[in-house]
Amino acid sequence: MSYSQANNLPAAIPIGEYVFHRLRQLRVFTVFGLPGEFCMPLMDTLTRVPEMRWAGNTNELNAAYAVDGYSRLKRLGCLITTFGVGELSALNGIAGSFAEHVGVVHIVGMPPTSATTKQQLLHHTLGNGDYEVFYRMARDITCYTAMVTDKDLCADEVDMCIRMAWIKQKPTYLGVPSNQMGLMVPSQRLDTPLELELSSSERQRNVTQHRSHSNGSTPSGQGSNGGAFPEQDLPKVILKKLYEARSPAIIVDACVTRQGLLRETELFCEITNFPVFVTPMAKGIINEDLQNFGGVFTGSISAPEVREVVDFADFVIVIGCVLQEFSTSSFHFNIKPKNSVFLFDDSVKIRNTAYPDVCIKPLMKNLLFQLDQSRINYRFDKKPEIVVPRNKRAENQLLRQEWVWGEFSHWFKQGDIIITEVGTSAFGIIQTKFPKNTWGISQALWGSSGYSLGACLGASFAAQELEQEALLYGTINDAHFCHRVILFVGDGAFQITMQELSTMIKWNLKPYIFIMNNQGYSIDRFLHHRSNAKYYDIQQWNYLSLLSVFGATDYETRKIVTMGDLENMLTDQNFAVNNKIRMLEIMVPSMDVPQAIIDKWQREKEGSNVINEPEQAFSIDTGISDPLSWSESPLTELEPEHKRRHL
Amino acid sequence: MSYSQANNLPAAIPIGEYVFHRLRQLRVFTVFGLPGEFCMPLMDTLTRVPEMRWAGNTNELNAAYAVDGYSRLKRLGCLITTFGVGELSALNGIAGSFAEHVGVVHIVGMPPTSATTKQQLLHHTLGNGDYEVFYRMARDITCYTAMVTDKDLCADEVDMCIRMAWIKQKPTYLGVPSNQMGLMVPSQRLDTPLELELSSSERQRNVTQHRSHSNGSTPSGQGSNGGAFPEQDLPKVILKKLYEARSPAIIVDACVTRQGLLRETELFCEITNFPVFVTPMAKGIINEDLQNFGGVFTGSISAPEVREVVDFADFVIVIGCVLQEFSTSSFHFNIKPKNSVFLFDDSVKIRNTAYPDVCIKPLMKNLLFQLDQSRINYRFDKKPEIVVPRNKRAENQLLRQEWVWGEFSHWFKQGDIIITEVGTSAFGIIQTKFPKNTWGISQALWGSSGYSLGACLGASFAAQELEQEALLYGTINDAHFCHRVILFVGDGAFQITMQELSTMIKWNLKPYIFIMNNQGYSIDRFLHHRSNAKYYDIQQWNYLSLLSVFGATDYETRKIVTMGDLENMLTDQNFAVNNKIRMLEIMVPSMDVPQAIIDKWQREKEGSNVINEPEQAFSIDTGISDPLSWSESPLTELEPEHKRRHL
Repeated sequence: MSYSQANNLPAAIPIGEYVFHRLRQLRVFTVFGLPGEFCMPLMDTLTRVPEMRWAGNTNELNAAYAVDGYSRLKRLGCLITTFGVGELSALNGIAGSFAEHVGVVHIVGMPPTSATTKQQLLHHTLGNGDYEVFYRMARDITCYTAMVTDKDLCADEVDMCIRMAWIKQKPTYLGVPSNQMGLMVPSQRLDTPLELELSSSERQRNVTQHRSHSNGSTPSGQGSNGGAFPEQDLPKVILKKLYEARSPAIIVDACVTRQGLLRETELFCEITNFPVFVTPMAKGIINEDLQNFGGVFTGSISAPEVREVVDFADFVIVIGCVLQEFSTSSFHFNIKPKNSVFLFDDSVKIRNTAYPDVCIKPLMKNLLFQLDQSRINYRFDKKPEIVVPRNKRAENQLLRQEWVWGEFSHWFKQGDIIITEVGTSAFGIIQTKFPKNTWGISQALWGSSGYSLGACLGASFAAQELEQEALLYGTINDAHFCHRVILFVGDGAFQITMQELSTMIKWNLKPYIFIMNNQGYSIDRFLHHRSNAKYYDIQQWNYLSLLSVFGATDYETRKIVTMGDLENMLTDQNFAVNNKIRMLEIMVPSMDVPQAIIDKWQREKEGSNVINEPEQAFSIDTGISDPLSWSESPLTELEPEHKRRHL
Repeated sequence: MSYSQANNLPAAIPIGEYVFHRLRQLRVFTVFGLPGEFCMPLMDTLTRVPEMRWAGNTNELNAAYAVDGYSRLKRLGCLITTFGVGELSALNGIAGSFAEHVGVVHIVGMPPTSATTKQQLLHHTLGNGDYEVFYRMARDITCYTAMVTDKDLCADEVDMCIRMAWIKQKPTYLGVPSNQMGLMVPSQRLDTPLELELSSSERQRNVTQHRSHSNGSTPSGQGSNGGAFPEQDLPKVILKKLYEARSPAIIVDACVTRQGLLRETELFCEITNFPVFVTPMAKGIINEDLQNFGGVFTGSISAPEVREVVDFADFVIVIGCVLQEFSTSSFHFNIKPKNSVFLFDDSVKIRNTAYPDVCIKPLMKNLLFQLDQSRINYRFDKKPEIVVPRNKRAENQLLRQEWVWGEFSHWFKQGDIIITEVGTSAFGIIQTKFPKNTWGISQALWGSSGYSLGACLGASFAAQELEQEALLYGTINDAHFCHRVILFVGDGAFQITMQELSTMIKWNLKPYIFIMNNQGYSIDRFLHHRSNAKYYDIQQWNYLSLLSVFGATDYETRKIVTMGDLENMLTDQNFAVNNKIRMLEIMVPSMDVPQAIIDKWQREKEGSNVINEPEQAFSIDTGISDPLSWSESPLTELEPEHKRRHL
């Protein structure tokens, strides 16, 4: 039976309804956003499509973060905002999805076309008759923009917006004037599933665009073989280098999940048996129990054992590469070896030669197909086992970031979805070991503070849907069946988007929210070397009261101050079951950061890269003196074992 | 003694410090924003300038709203955000300032110039090497953009950004790369105050720009007199019409405060004695005790007595006009009479002739100077006194919006700063009577939900500073001395930006926060005629617990359910003294809206402009049946007195 028959659809349906049927076909069941004057007619149609639900966020930025988190697990998400005030509030979130390759369809309810053609001045405009300004702004942070204006074309435009978001894993923008929601389109269109790969003609257009837009960061086309698509020929070139390698390395980056290459990548790692590392954004993609898994590659602040392999490799292949290099104030990410192969989502770079217009999915399939294990020169050498030590501490010992992250390694379990905020948590998590089949979410490149709480909401919706699907189709075995959603967020970042907690409660979602309370913006405190600047302080809240204030009735809260508290919590069997929403406040010193950052800082100091501000400089060697610390006892000198990096 | 001497400045100071000295000279003492990687060096310089304080907001959008509220009272404000993630989050707020003519200097801490010229990929970029994308986006919503890059020019650029924001009352954008903060500029520059009017050459350039950019909404230049500035000649033309008028009207709009024309406008109204009305954005500007004050002009939903005068006037002059017309879903604002004169901030339109390049300040001065009272034909006719009735209700009677607003009219006092959110409150406030010397803040045109709480923070800072200045200079007499900041915000809008409450507590500010709890987005419920749509519901919070959760110790909360509760509160003398932060939850029915909206709705219904959705339509006549209403007793039919509109 066709889709339109199975759903008992009339011959023609309104375009608004059509959008949601298309999304539903791609298993997008939750739509994020806020109601607004111009998008209500659209939202009315949402209720008519079975299985679809309207999340109803507390503000647009939070909604944009939520749809991003949702899409990272389901490959696509949909956000609805209203013209002007709504869409602009979501812009930072959309830009994050663009930077980090996340597929989001952003639908904007616009004023009726009559108002825009007559330039009638309206609410939510800039008052200058310019109705296209927001649409123009969106162009820089989307891969496709369209407007529903023409009866004959609107269904095509909807399809394109959804397809491009799925295929390119970037946001798209669909403007729907409020009087156009009712344009009728044939429901039979829905009987043909969306084409989820670029057509030949689309790929050709892509190449052209690619060339004209390319700049320093994207490989440009000297190596194009003009004619057949290069997925067939490139594997030979790559495999030749791969076979010859004597000290190779694989780095797995985030586009592997975005482009649905998990299985291919896993196989590639298993067959080659090359040492494999993940970028911070890709942690969770590779089974960390693999014998050849080597940990997280964080460029300049990688653990010595990681740098040793990557820096001295004679062949490095980066699979699902987001960016060839990038730097933050904490680290610089750069692949040095000459024999490097970068597999981007839509291009390949081998040494200095760029091959545009390569689709990574068929390329990976061809690579695996042609790969002849017997011709590989490299023989895997047993590497030291990664052991995350248990920190045996006195029960009343106050917490340190270093110890906390170690303990969590032993608490995580299969199926967990682990979200970390861009502050100290994103570094702490690098030191943990993930069980297999866990998902990591971290906005490492765009790095917008407050992102993680919104993403946690989106991930919680997605987790629920993934569980239901697993039940329905029996696609996942029991062990992975339960997806606990676990968030680590600093107090400073939490405050930015905190009302989204309310949406979690409204929907009875059950994440674990660990608030790393270090009394302000610690990562900045540390990196700017001015421990006492007042602008890093934030107002102290009674965080644990918030669940009740927002209307939660079945919940658990804990304040974790000592190692004893931490151990009690993590060994409590009831605590491990995600049967209610939980908020856990982890009290860490305000000047304490994970070891990775301390290492970097020390290296920079040794290398005199540090700007000398002697009177204000923060000294790691003599103990941390911080008048703002909640802890009464000043931190003692770092003990030997903390000099070691794990993973 | 010169400024540099008085402040004991060295011969050269860093550009970062220079910015804050310039702002201080214009009595901008509070700077809003959040710290971030690239703006920290700038914030470090802030602490070196006396009297300056860093508000430290909870998120960037809230900060943008706060600076807008601050600037509406002080004519200028400054916001600091960080590159990418920070500035984009503030964009909706900045667009609001642009639409509503509010002067804001938005300073963005950018990556070091070395990174941008080398196109080194960095944190908070889109990953495509495009560093200018955010700067480009800002252009559409600012009147001036500049970048601190050149040692010799940077102080000029800073001056221009501040001057243009002040003069044009629009946002400006100043990008400061983090490595440029230390550029040294001569402190002697500070001894010459900023020129706060456009120079002749700037005005000429302005005209050119104006012409090339003008579109439907801005008058374009057929009437330009090319040569001398038209402020000298225009008054004659205007006064001729004014003298002849037999049924004239004055409408005062928001640019009167933005351009500092309060005194001139007041005089103009007193001398002519013409009936004077204010737009919703301008409520508070005109002393409502004036015998010729006629109320608020809200276009299509104006009270009959207002429409009667304005629609049938033979001469209408709009002073400080923001827009010639605009419409929202609730009303259409349009001046019909043929003999109309619009005084914009930078142009004039008389009937259909536009005069660009007119500065409103000198024009108003000239108008007043040339105005000959004896030649005025019109003689003021005593109009019925505006009486806001007391609603004598049983103590246990549940609240209605209509009664609530009436009661507040009698509680307001001189000096009050009254802020209303764009939902039902913005309509309710129209029905109140303001004592003289009150300020009203409402984002009527841009209309971004959640704005008002941020604006309330900014206004609270400004109120504090205005009080201090009054003390210092004795500029205001005792009666106005205390500025109570009073916010009316719906529960839906409150949730959007609610964490800014924390910043108020951090600074020990003392606003009154009235949360109009109607269990969701009532204004939309009403206007969309679908009372039961689930997407208007919001999670119910224990609002009154929030002050304590955010760390307040000295505060007051009340839940106001009955008319008795309301009366007790408003007659409590202690309650009237703003000596602590207060949060008051006013329980109103979820389908109850102020009379102005009901009137409009009924008129539309009569005119059959309403889309018939019989099964879902909300019926005002038969009583409001709303399953979501908190109230147990369905609202009874509207009683006769509520059919009347006051003011």
